[in-house]
Amino acid sequence: MASWPTERTRVRRKSDRGSYDRGTINRILDEVLTCHVGFVTDGQPYVVPTVHARDRERLYFHGSLANRMLNALAKGAPCCVTVTQVDGVILARSARKHSLNYRSVMVLGVATEVIDPEQKIGALRCIVEHMVPGRTADVGEASEHDLASTAVLTLPIDEASAKVREGGPSDSADEHTGHIWAGQLPLALTPSAPIADAPADKEIAVPGYLKQWRTGLRSQPRD
Amino acid sequence: MASWPTERTRVRRKSDRGSYDRGTINRILDEVLTCHVGFVTDGQPYVVPTVHARDRERLYFHGSLANRMLNALAKGAPCCVTVTQVDGVILARSARKHSLNYRSVMVLGVATEVIDPEQKIGALRCIVEHMVPGRTADVGEASEHDLASTAVLTLPIDEASAKVREGGPSDSADEHTGHIWAGQLPLALTPSAPIADAPADKEIAVPGYLKQWRTGLRSQPRD
Repeated sequence: MASWPTERTRVRRKSDRGSYDRGTINRILDEVLTCHVGFVTDGQPYVVPTVHARDRERLYFHGSLANRMLNALAKGAPCCVTVTQVDGVILARSARKHSLNYRSVMVLGVATEVIDPEQKIGALRCIVEHMVPGRTADVGEASEHDLASTAVLTLPIDEASAKVREGGPSDSADEHTGHIWAGQLPLALTPSAPIADAPADKEIAVPGYLKQWRTGLRSQPRD
Repeated sequence: MASWPTERTRVRRKSDRGSYDRGTINRILDEVLTCHVGFVTDGQPYVVPTVHARDRERLYFHGSLANRMLNALAKGAPCCVTVTQVDGVILARSARKHSLNYRSVMVLGVATEVIDPEQKIGALRCIVEHMVPGRTADVGEASEHDLASTAVLTLPIDEASAKVREGGPSDSADEHTGHIWAGQLPLALTPSAPIADAPADKEIAVPGYLKQWRTGLRSQPRD
């Protein structure tokens, strides 16, 4: 692990919101369902959403959403993986101070494609477990066919920073006259009732791990 | 408006999920709360989350989250703004087919800083109304002080594509034996009860527009 922060990951704007704490970074990476991968092709940046998962000091993410991404990154091009969860809307007393509560992590580095079959099976297991903890016990590991038809990329979590905004509006009631309600509207990515796929699925009990699926439960401390 | 899709925005992977329909693109841009902005500095891509808003054929977004972004983009560098909403987790019968339902839009182009005071006031109004429709009636327009202390960038929506995944798992029950429950877990960014900031705010009724705040309501058709 490189010493954090590097010049590139140092949080410059509103630096009181910046964090380089390993635990904070890992919790955000583990809890947030998706990431946005940034890469450059012919001088043009692209930002592609995909699913990621963390395994200790390493990120895995699906390369299959964009061959363009795979082609660019397989050449050893630098990339940026950013993970963001919105936690609320801040209703301030002035227009300018309206904002969002959020937790975000940025990881910089060079991604490589996972080729080794053992590592790739483990990476796909991580990604499935990231989406639905407990699911692997039902569906098993990826098959050889799965490996051939799916691309997985990996990025070491060496150069990373977190940025968190929490709490209420940053302008105080003292600064403003009038009676404008100020506060926050908490937001969370919330599940509703599971929908069975085929008639046969309706005959099967909804798995216990799915009933327990919650953003919060998905963020239990891990290695 | 350039003809869509361009070679750069054509959806290559799973092209049945791609869309260049103006209405689809606008609805996603209007409903999703945040965007991820990709830009390049010294060959390194960065992906920064921020708040955006659409005004007809133009995107506005806060430049204040990262001076690095403002500096890079003010020089006329190409950027990519990607907006993504996760709508559910797909529990398939095989590990590989696990996926997410989502709606995403990618806009490519060259962003510029908004300097004209009239346009900037309008842009900030759009951004506040994007977060909380109806709020401007309470807090008013941005002041001169607001303009001086906030950077806003704009990007024409000329080169854009949408990608949507919806429905259930893509592997059918026929392909698999065993009794694995398959289906989807719908997800939505859902508000909970508003939290008043100061004691004085508790004396003020929660605004009606906040009680009506819902992802769905925020996505009423607009120009």
